[in-house]
Amino acid sequence: RYGYFGRDKPEVVRLMLCNVSGCLTDGKLYFSVSGEEMLSVNTRDTMGIRMLKKEGVEVVLLITTEDLMTKVLSDKLAHKTGCKVRQTGVEILGEVKGMLEERKLEWKEVAYMGNDEPDVVCLNLAGLSAVPRDAPVVAVNAAKYICHSPGGMGAVREFAEHILLLKKKAKSQMEQDRIHRQNF
Amino acid sequence: RYGYFGRDKPEVVRLMLCNVSGCLTDGKLYFSVSGEEMLSVNTRDTMGIRMLKKEGVEVVLLITTEDLMTKVLSDKLAHKTGCKVRQTGVEILGEVKGMLEERKLEWKEVAYMGNDEPDVVCLNLAGLSAVPRDAPVVAVNAAKYICHSPGGMGAVREFAEHILLLKKKAKSQMEQDRIHRQNF
Amino acid sequence: RYGYFGRDKPEVVRLMLCNVSGCLTDGKLYFSVSGEEMLSVNTRDTMGIRMLKKEGVEVVLLITTEDLMTKVLSDKLAHKTGCKVRQTGVEILGEVKGMLEERKLEWKEVAYMGNDEPDVVCLNLAGLSAVPRDAPVVAVNAAKYICHSPGGMGAVREFAEHILLLKKKAKSQMEQDRIHRQNF
Amino acid sequence: RYGYFGRDKPEVVRLMLCNVSGCLTDGKLYFSVSGEEMLSVNTRDTMGIRMLKKEGVEVVLLITTEDLMTKVLSDKLAHKTGCKVRQTGVEILGEVKGMLEERKLEWKEVAYMGNDEPDVVCLNLAGLSAVPRDAPVVAVNAAKYICHSPGGMGAVREFAEHILLLKKKAKSQMEQDRIHRQNF
Repeated sequence: RYGYFGRDKPEVVRLMLCNVSGCLTDGKLYFSVSGEEMLSVNTRDTMGIRMLKKEGVEVVLLITTEDLMTKVLSDKLAHKTGCKVRQTGVEILGEVKGMLEERKLEWKEVAYMGNDEPDVVCLNLAGLSAVPRDAPVVAVNAAKYICHSPGGMGAVREFAEHILLLKKKAKSQMEQDRIHRQNF
Repeated sequence: RYGYFGRDKPEVVRLMLCNVSGCLTDGKLYFSVSGEEMLSVNTRDTMGIRMLKKEGVEVVLLITTEDLMTKVLSDKLAHKTGCKVRQTGVEILGEVKGMLEERKLEWKEVAYMGNDEPDVVCLNLAGLSAVPRDAPVVAVNAAKYICHSPGGMGAVREFAEHILLLKKKAKSQMEQDRIHRQNF
Repeated sequence: RYGYFGRDKPEVVRLMLCNVSGCLTDGKLYFSVSGEEMLSVNTRDTMGIRMLKKEGVEVVLLITTEDLMTKVLSDKLAHKTGCKVRQTGVEILGEVKGMLEERKLEWKEVAYMGNDEPDVVCLNLAGLSAVPRDAPVVAVNAAKYICHSPGGMGAVREFAEHILLLKKKAKSQMEQDRIHRQNF
Repeated sequence: RYGYFGRDKPEVVRLMLCNVSGCLTDGKLYFSVSGEEMLSVNTRDTMGIRMLKKEGVEVVLLITTEDLMTKVLSDKLAHKTGCKVRQTGVEILGEVKGMLEERKLEWKEVAYMGNDEPDVVCLNLAGLSAVPRDAPVVAVNAAKYICHSPGGMGAVREFAEHILLLKKKAKSQMEQDRIHRQNF
């Protein structure tokens, strides 16, 4: 889109992918005698998701089959956050590639948030990527941005603000470039 | 009331407004497979609310429509804390103005506690205002007082004590002024 | 009992009183749409209570009427911890005095753990007293021992170990005194 | 097995035993008015267990009868983590000895994770042993490895990574020894 500037610009983020467990949640899954399963989502983080959507960024939540979470619970999560939730296999990469093709997007237009080994490939490939402060080393090493907040306590919000800030910077840079071209 | 001293005095706090999510709660909303929704409130904070009421300060809890919380849950919250709970739209300001008119109060008589973007206007307008330690920057910048405790872990209590301390100081100042006037 | 040494000895602790909210729990009371109420207790703390009982110290849990907790929940708590739970009014002192009379105990034989204003009098009167790290200033100032752990995260355990250590010290001191008397 | 090298090698870990309360959980047991009991398990930790299994290490979870946990809840736990869960009496040692005999294993082939007094003997005997950061002193003193993470927040994961790292080191040492023997 802005390719004629000769560089990938971070403002092109059109899709934010976020692994639920440990990013949007604090990684805890509660379960009970009677068969209840529970998890928690933080208002600050859902506010961050809402901010992204408002600026035209689609947000999709990912749940790997190894996350111990039931189908019902991930539907609830979708309903609560207003995001699509995608159950991926252990191989997240395949699923994500499919999503990019569907939407005709490139990796540089994707922001990825993950927090463990299955996320490493996507953390490396995405134009922007982040992990919560408390992620295991293997994920931290692959991420472009390390949040100050731990998972489920504002990490998603922080990454959302980071994306929006870069978007704003890129926009004002573009404005300046336009002015320069008009003046000379 | 004490206007003839020529300055707004903090002791005039008659109404404390508190955004529930992230101030009275830790921002976490739990939800379960069977459809349960849960949140937690801290004894220390409800004790703080009780202390305010005892000193004649009305406390109203605010829930914005974006807080993912059901009507039933906010009624429960009202019952548990003994406060009125008001469901506000995204535009908190309009609701709050209505409350001030009803009570014939001015902004300087209001203490406001919030923790995110929708609270910014009220944080700026209220005579006293505070955010929990873990609030996003946008809210921190608008608040007059930043709590040492995070939301749901004593922030409301801390702000309550701050309000009561100012009230006490102002009262003893008033006493002194009275004595001075009598002596000279 | 050991009065002929001429000093109050901490080893005489026979009764440990512990305010539940904020000491044994982390102060959080969860409540839900369907009317459920929930709280959490930490294994480390119940282990501490068990250690006290094993050494002959009775443990009674206190719940003030202002703690928002239902009768059912406090019975559950009693069952889970194996302690008596006593619903006290705002005036804890009266209840505690009654308990001391029943057991023919003196204040110096009591260890008291609390974490807020209603506990202040008893924190002052008890032979040993403690607050969790995160207690409000008013309670901290009245306590003889300030735990390193916050409420619901090992504070009760820590105080239990403190009591048992003093008991052990006093015992070995007594042994030594006996040896001295025999030798001279 | 690798005994002809003349030293116990850490790579022989074949069985990982893990006390549930305070290691795999954060020690909190939730209980409610209606009789529900709940606990939480962290995705990061279950990922660690999965990593161990993948490398051929069996994982068994231990629950002592003093842990306040019902039979139903421990079955749930087994189902969720994919591990066997063993209800042990206060005397964990006896149970563990039985498990070693069944499997014809020696203590040096066992990794043990615990966090309190009942775990001390096994922490001392096991070839590898660890406690979460927030374990009581009595357990910390007996452990060979002290995790940086607290219980229920990645401690099990951290110990799993530690075991796998040692395994890898030992393997590459063995490779080198083989090359040396072939060359001389």
